[in-house]
Amino acid sequence: MPHFDDQALTSEVIESFANTPNTRLKFVIQETVKALHDLVRRTELTFEEWKQAIEFLTRTGQTCTPLRQEFILLSDVLGVSMLVDAVNHREREGATETTVLGPFYVGEHKPMPHGADITKGIAGEPMFVQSRVTDLAGKPLVGAEIDVWHADDDGFYDSQKADYAQLGPSLRARFITDAEGRFSFRTILPCSYPIPADGPVGDLITATNRHPMRPAHVHFLVKAEGYEPLITHVFLDGDEYLRSDVVFGVKDELIAKVQPRTEPTLPNGDAVTGPWHLMTYDFQMKPGAGMVPQPMMSAAE
Amino acid sequence: MPHFDDQALTSEVIESFANTPNTRLKFVIQETVKALHDLVRRTELTFEEWKQAIEFLTRTGQTCTPLRQEFILLSDVLGVSMLVDAVNHREREGATETTVLGPFYVGEHKPMPHGADITKGIAGEPMFVQSRVTDLAGKPLVGAEIDVWHADDDGFYDSQKADYAQLGPSLRARFITDAEGRFSFRTILPCSYPIPADGPVGDLITATNRHPMRPAHVHFLVKAEGYEPLITHVFLDGDEYLRSDVVFGVKDELIAKVQPRTEPTLPNGDAVTGPWHLMTYDFQMKPGAGMVPQPMMSAAE
Repeated sequence: MPHFDDQALTSEVIESFANTPNTRLKFVIQETVKALHDLVRRTELTFEEWKQAIEFLTRTGQTCTPLRQEFILLSDVLGVSMLVDAVNHREREGATETTVLGPFYVGEHKPMPHGADITKGIAGEPMFVQSRVTDLAGKPLVGAEIDVWHADDDGFYDSQKADYAQLGPSLRARFITDAEGRFSFRTILPCSYPIPADGPVGDLITATNRHPMRPAHVHFLVKAEGYEPLITHVFLDGDEYLRSDVVFGVKDELIAKVQPRTEPTLPNGDAVTGPWHLMTYDFQMKPGAGMVPQPMMSAAE
Repeated sequence: MPHFDDQALTSEVIESFANTPNTRLKFVIQETVKALHDLVRRTELTFEEWKQAIEFLTRTGQTCTPLRQEFILLSDVLGVSMLVDAVNHREREGATETTVLGPFYVGEHKPMPHGADITKGIAGEPMFVQSRVTDLAGKPLVGAEIDVWHADDDGFYDSQKADYAQLGPSLRARFITDAEGRFSFRTILPCSYPIPADGPVGDLITATNRHPMRPAHVHFLVKAEGYEPLITHVFLDGDEYLRSDVVFGVKDELIAKVQPRTEPTLPNGDAVTGPWHLMTYDFQMKPGAGMVPQPMMSAAE
């Protein structure tokens, strides 16, 4: 009788999926088996380590709730979420870079007028955002729809708060570009903040001497007829976590210089006392089509 | 500014774990990142598929209970559990082959006399087991401890039953080898049975056109002073699932010919009417030491 051999085992497992009716599922699962088996061989994984891995995955699944997706957080801190984004957006051809949608996109809103204040009174240093949407050649796109959202000074989004249903959106809005492709709004300066660190993913971050911080950013979702929907963040230049975002979300092209300003009047005419900030960032759209994905519930926003 | 590049992302993620204090954890997590990233690249995983994977893992975690370990079941049906066993037992040097311990090992029992009936009246075709424990040269090992356990005709182990605490063990026992290294007992013929198929792992088995069956087997755990503990199964020759065990647990060396017999008396003197079965299988122990692992809770027993 042939001696048992671990390479033969791997072949046998791959072969066991040979009759999968969906050819794409068959390919993905067979590649997954190869990857897992190679990993076990390369690491010569011990029983005790295998058991720890099983316990970690179990705890990760059991930490998930309707409001918390710990497996996405795990995917995020292992760079897998950003890699999935990357392999699905290889050819940008000069279009603005992408990132993940995140868990705090809640769908569409009634458009607000240009220059609107979206803070609903939430405290923070004023920031004014001026932006333009164009095609790859710089031609303004008229009537493009832009959803924006970002966290408050404590790192929380409006939809994470218990009274969200009563209060409605804050630091969140929709705009439509004008004849020059422009839109603008008033908000507060976002800050860096930690991902949830009290679960198994937080334990992993701690055990590996990493920090849990994300650099300050604003989310943008841009849609224009005849162009691929653009899902991205704009990061604030100078943030101390730009080079070590715990979820690896930063792309150099997405860092915006935010200018310190001292004029007593914002571009929308609001009077302000003290310093404020001006963010300018333009978006280049790639021709094409595409659905906006369902909210991805990325816990790492 | 450099263009974002997915290989650079992978390097950045690997580097983020560079300060892990435990060097073994550092190695295993960095290899895990490489394996996951290579998998995403090779499959060009779509957002939708990534989301399905997240949902599958979440459901697997949430299916786990104190009595059910769905992640181990997943590890089992992907051949990972057997591979971990394999890489930890590469050099057998003629010793009996190993398999996983499984979830239904419940620890030690008071030794029973040789030839004892371990069925506690559970119905089934009688089977008598005759065995011997030796070193690699065939020298009998005296006083070796052997724990045996197997499922009933419905595929359930005693410890899965609600009244286990009252009834105590059945189809489960401990024996001590005699001066010739021998032990023997009376039980019933085990049968093939399905792993739990009502969870996400069952869905995977169904979606990939696999069957959920394990071939009939008896568990053995053999301990002898100065030898590596031996954790294994003995499978019944002729079982239709020997070549397609859903958890890939079968090694050719572990298949035993079970002889059909018709004598009216078993080797232990018990009178029987009708056919019975004789299993003979000897165990060769490898010199060394080693702890018996904690019960692994493999859901696929």
